[in-house]
Amino acid sequence: MAEPDRSQLIEEAIASIASLRKEGAHLHSITNTVAQNFTANVLLACGATVSMTSNPEEIEDFVGKADALHINLGTLDDARMQSIRRAVSKANERQITITLDPVMVHVSVLRLSFAHEVLGNTSIVKGNSSEIKCVTTPGLQKACIVETGETDRVFFDDQTVLISNGHPMLSKVIATGCALGALITILTAKTPDKKTACVAALLWVSIAGEIAAERAAGPGSFQYELLDALATISLDDIRERAKVEYE
Amino acid sequence: MAEPDRSQLIEEAIASIASLRKEGAHLHSITNTVAQNFTANVLLACGATVSMTSNPEEIEDFVGKADALHINLGTLDDARMQSIRRAVSKANERQITITLDPVMVHVSVLRLSFAHEVLGNTSIVKGNSSEIKCVTTPGLQKACIVETGETDRVFFDDQTVLISNGHPMLSKVIATGCALGALITILTAKTPDKKTACVAALLWVSIAGEIAAERAAGPGSFQYELLDALATISLDDIRERAKVEYE
Amino acid sequence: MAEPDRSQLIEEAIASIASLRKEGAHLHSITNTVAQNFTANVLLACGATVSMTSNPEEIEDFVGKADALHINLGTLDDARMQSIRRAVSKANERQITITLDPVMVHVSVLRLSFAHEVLGNTSIVKGNSSEIKCVTTPGLQKACIVETGETDRVFFDDQTVLISNGHPMLSKVIATGCALGALITILTAKTPDKKTACVAALLWVSIAGEIAAERAAGPGSFQYELLDALATISLDDIRERAKVEYE
Repeated sequence: MAEPDRSQLIEEAIASIASLRKEGAHLHSITNTVAQNFTANVLLACGATVSMTSNPEEIEDFVGKADALHINLGTLDDARMQSIRRAVSKANERQITITLDPVMVHVSVLRLSFAHEVLGNTSIVKGNSSEIKCVTTPGLQKACIVETGETDRVFFDDQTVLISNGHPMLSKVIATGCALGALITILTAKTPDKKTACVAALLWVSIAGEIAAERAAGPGSFQYELLDALATISLDDIRERAKVEYE
Repeated sequence: MAEPDRSQLIEEAIASIASLRKEGAHLHSITNTVAQNFTANVLLACGATVSMTSNPEEIEDFVGKADALHINLGTLDDARMQSIRRAVSKANERQITITLDPVMVHVSVLRLSFAHEVLGNTSIVKGNSSEIKCVTTPGLQKACIVETGETDRVFFDDQTVLISNGHPMLSKVIATGCALGALITILTAKTPDKKTACVAALLWVSIAGEIAAERAAGPGSFQYELLDALATISLDDIRERAKVEYE
Repeated sequence: MAEPDRSQLIEEAIASIASLRKEGAHLHSITNTVAQNFTANVLLACGATVSMTSNPEEIEDFVGKADALHINLGTLDDARMQSIRRAVSKANERQITITLDPVMVHVSVLRLSFAHEVLGNTSIVKGNSSEIKCVTTPGLQKACIVETGETDRVFFDDQTVLISNGHPMLSKVIATGCALGALITILTAKTPDKKTACVAALLWVSIAGEIAAERAAGPGSFQYELLDALATISLDDIRERAKVEYE
C-alpha cells in the first residue's frame, strides 16, 4: 500500500473548514446543560448554526432539519435517552452522520450501557482514553475513533493519525472537549470522509487554543480568545502550524 | 391623525432605560437552558434582577414576587408547559406583563400548538420573521409584536416603528435574541406603554452591539464588550445613535 | 479562653488554597442550570475538577468518586430531590463533606421544606441573610454557617469571623455566589477544619473580585478578569489584602 499522503489530508481538512465558514451548516446537538452555551458559541464562531432541544416530542422536527447529529452523554435522563433513540432513527432515515461523545462512561454504569445501545449507529466516537477504552468493541470497527489527550489520535480503517497541536489551557475551560465533539460532527457535512472531519476539527480547536494561550492572561481571557481565534484564524495559519502524522 | 412623534418615542424609551438602571426591577424568566446564563448577565448589566425556576411546584412563589413574566419556548417539556400555565395565571392575577418568545415555533409542531395556547394572555410577542408569521392570528391584534431582523420592526395598534441599529456580530453570540426578549419584558415595568418598552430594549441592545463591534476582535470579545456596553453606555449615546422611524 | 489567632486562621486558609492549586480535588456539584458553566470554570481556575450530573440513576457512581458534595437548590425538581437524597447518603457513607446553598429558600415553600430535610446532614450552609434566617434551627448548631453580604460572616462553635473583602461588581455577574459555595465545598478536602475552608474560599473569591474590578471596564470584562485573577493571584497578595477579624 502506498504511504498515505499527510499533506493531502491536511488540505482536505482545511477545505472542509473553509466550506463550513463559507456555506454554514446546521447541527442538532443533544448535549449536557453545562456545555450548551459554550458549545453553541464555538459553533457560531466557526460558521455553523445549532439547535439543542432534547424533548422527545419535538426531537424529530429538529433532526429533520439538521445536517448532522451530535450526541453527548454528559447530562442523561429518561427524556434524553428517549430523545436520542428517536433522533438516531430520524438521522439514519435522512442518512446524516451521527457522532457520540460518551462522557464519563467509565464512571457511570447507566451511561456505559446506554452508549453500547447507541454505538452501532454511530460513525464517529470521541472521548479521552478512559472513555474510549470502555466503548471499543468489535462492532465499532467501522467507526472513526477520536481519542483526545496530549497527543490526539484518530483511528480509522487500520490506520492512525496523530495530531500534536494544542495547549494545556484547553483543559482549564469547561466544555472545550464537548464543543470539539460538536465541531467534528458538523464538519462531516462538509467532507465525504469521516477522518477528514475529525482531523479538521482537532486542528481548528487545538491551533486556535495555541493562539489563544499566547494572548491570554488566564483561563477567563483564554475563553474569549479561543472564540476569537476560531473565528479569525487564517487557513494559512492552520496549514503552517499543523502537526499531523501517520503512526 | 397627527403624525406620531419620533423624538417623543425615543425620549420615553430612554426614560425607561434610566428608570431600570436607577431603581431596578425583578423579572421571572422561564427560558431555555442554553440562554439562561447569558440572559441573566444581560439583565444584571442593565440593572435588573432575575429568577429562572421552571418547576411547577414553586413557580407561583416566584412569579408572585416578579415585576414581569418572560416566556421563551427554547426548552420545552411537560414540566415547563405546566409551569408556564401556572405562571401565566399568577401573572394575570397580579396584572404584570407577560411576553412570549416563540423560539423555533416554525420548526416544532409542539411549540406551535403550545404558543397558540399561551398567545391570548401575552401582550408582547418577539421573534424573527419565520416565528412571527406562525403566531400572527386575529386574536393577537391587541398585542405589541417585535419582529427582529436586519431592521427590527415593532407593530402596535395600526402602526409600525422601524429600528435600524445593530450589528451582524449580534448573531454570532448565542442567546442575544433571547436576552433581548427578557430585557423587553422587564422594561414593561418601567413604562406604561408596551411599544416603548420594545423600542427601549431594541435600542439598548442594538446600540450596545454597535459599540461592542467597534471594540471586539471576534465573537468571544464581542460577548464581554456587549455586556460592558449595556452597563456603561450613556443615555446621550443612545439618543445620538438611535435610528428610529415610523413606517 | 485565649483570643483566637487571626493570623493563624489566614495562614491555614492560604495553605488550603495552595493545596488545592497543587494537588487538585474532585467535587460533585448538584447545582442550578443557570450557574453550572460559570461554577465549573471557577473550579477549574482554582485547580479543582467537577462533575455535575443530577440523574438519580447514576448519582452514586459520581459521588463515589468525589472528594466533597455541593448541593445548591437553585434548580429543584423531583429528579434532583431524589438525586440529592441518594447523594447525601453516599457522601455520608464515604465521610466526605456535604454543603448546602439554600438558594431563594425564603421565596419557595418547596425549597424551604426540602432544605430542612437535608440540613441535618450538612456541615456547612452558605447563603445571604434572608436565606440563612430561614434555615437557622437548633439542629444546625454543629454546622459552620456562611452568611454573605457587604461583610461576610462565618459562624462556627460560638465564634464569628468577619471578612470585609470583596467588590460590588461581584453581584453584577450571575452565579458568583453559587460558585463561591462550590469552592468552599471542595476546599474542605484540603483542610481538616470547616471554618478554614469557608474563610479560604471567601478570601479567594473576594480578593480576586477586588483585583478584577480594578482591571474591568464593566460586568462583561469583570467576568473574565475574575477567572484570570482566581487562577493567577499570588498567596502573598491574598495574605496582604485579607481583611479578617473575629467579632
